[in-house]
Amino acid sequence: MDSRPAVSQEGEELQPGPLVEWGTTVRSYELDSFGHVNHAVHLNWFEQARFETFEAVGFPPAALLGRGWGIHVVRVEVDYRREARLGERIRILTRVERVRNSSMSLHQVALHEPGEEVVAEARVVLVWIGPNRSPMKIPEEIREALKRG
Amino acid sequence: MDSRPAVSQEGEELQPGPLVEWGTTVRSYELDSFGHVNHAVHLNWFEQARFETFEAVGFPPAALLGRGWGIHVVRVEVDYRREARLGERIRILTRVERVRNSSMSLHQVALHEPGEEVVAEARVVLVWIGPNRSPMKIPEEIREALKRG
Amino acid sequence: MDSRPAVSQEGEELQPGPLVEWGTTVRSYELDSFGHVNHAVHLNWFEQARFETFEAVGFPPAALLGRGWGIHVVRVEVDYRREARLGERIRILTRVERVRNSSMSLHQVALHEPGEEVVAEARVVLVWIGPNRSPMKIPEEIREALKRG
Amino acid sequence: MDSRPAVSQEGEELQPGPLVEWGTTVRSYELDSFGHVNHAVHLNWFEQARFETFEAVGFPPAALLGRGWGIHVVRVEVDYRREARLGERIRILTRVERVRNSSMSLHQVALHEPGEEVVAEARVVLVWIGPNRSPMKIPEEIREALKRG
Repeated sequence: MDSRPAVSQEGEELQPGPLVEWGTTVRSYELDSFGHVNHAVHLNWFEQARFETFEAVGFPPAALLGRGWGIHVVRVEVDYRREARLGERIRILTRVERVRNSSMSLHQVALHEPGEEVVAEARVVLVWIGPNRSPMKIPEEIREALKRG
Repeated sequence: MDSRPAVSQEGEELQPGPLVEWGTTVRSYELDSFGHVNHAVHLNWFEQARFETFEAVGFPPAALLGRGWGIHVVRVEVDYRREARLGERIRILTRVERVRNSSMSLHQVALHEPGEEVVAEARVVLVWIGPNRSPMKIPEEIREALKRG
Repeated sequence: MDSRPAVSQEGEELQPGPLVEWGTTVRSYELDSFGHVNHAVHLNWFEQARFETFEAVGFPPAALLGRGWGIHVVRVEVDYRREARLGERIRILTRVERVRNSSMSLHQVALHEPGEEVVAEARVVLVWIGPNRSPMKIPEEIREALKRG
Repeated sequence: MDSRPAVSQEGEELQPGPLVEWGTTVRSYELDSFGHVNHAVHLNWFEQARFETFEAVGFPPAALLGRGWGIHVVRVEVDYRREARLGERIRILTRVERVRNSSMSLHQVALHEPGEEVVAEARVVLVWIGPNRSPMKIPEEIREALKRG
């Protein structure tokens, strides 16, 4: 059952790439029966933080969707380092690290305030999808916006 | 922000390790605004499939929780290969690949029936947590059950 | 802050109206920190059961969406009578009770198998939404299909 | 299949009862395939707003759970009046209206800022559950805290 994909290291590395913060507070319905935030919820948070990142560089989600672009997750790697508990304040830092032809790689860290302990750390690969539902070249205006930060 | 953990390759490799199947059908509320299953939902499916796996070897979730054991996800890697859409039948195969002192690694594949195309593929590391909320040695009876399959 | 809407009792009462069953098993991620199914999850189940109902009378969700129709929930009433717990088998019965110009009312019951105890009971009002995102007359073919059952 | 429960109108009506606000912004993963917030998500919001209300009068969730108390939803009524869309700011007002022996009724309104349009309005009945998982008399300290506001 082994078919680990090679995520290309080609493409343009953003130097240093914009770093965008977004914060959330752990909510009651995000807990599972172990009394901590369920590991799938961190993916929700990271997703929202990515949309906040695009918005921060000038592309609010409505603008992205309005052009018929989709942004699909094709790979996630998450290390969970510390439980998150009800009422805790979480700060998520997102950095776009590399932009390839139709995909980009991001590094995201969820920190527990105030101690700045790492709750979870993710590497995510996104593919840009055109109106015909196939991968498309990431638009130049997106590339430029990410470089400007 | 880089601190990729090394997941130990030590421990006992299960040969071949039990392979357990669980099926689900894509539901309306699992779709996001792109009209496909949101990538966090696959983690829900894989979680349920792991519980089904423990149940299949004799440890239903209620029995695990009843002893005060927790099973925490400390790492996931997921490759998303094909969108999953409303009403599609998904079959998830779970194999426990390696058992270490307090952690185990699993390989999970979500297939779209009937073509058997891979929807998503995951590698997951779990840590066994004792009643005092610290990692504990994975109980011998769990190890034995997994070997028997 | 009081503005209770009057849901019209006008319209055509379906006699007796089709009764459609759909079953699910309680999954790990549906539990909250009280160790039982979170009350919002029942709404997910009822939603899926409604789509199964439309499918049972000839309108799979893809067909509904493909015509640009939306089906929006404008009112729910749910009485929760019994906790649902991990691994329990739940059977949901859905009956369309009344069809008005652009809305319809349904009665849904979630039962715990095998004892047939009521887990939750819902009354739901849906509005049919046209491609211009305004309420539209419920199409004649839907009315006919619901009468035929 | 009809068994509409009568929610008792007995008990002490709080005059006027504390009004607590909590705000949230619509997130990407809260949308469904109709591109608006799924109706089950409003229940998540209202739940979180109730916990914020208990916290505002001196009972943070951890304190409630730490005493072995559970707070179960036994009835919800929600009227959905306006779609909520990505990025919109939502303000939720919660008022405890009536306290009975072991249950209480709340009125909750979700407003779209800045126009203060009503997105959804809920009436919720909660039952206080003791450590033996049976309904218990709502503790005097909770009653007093709610009266003080």
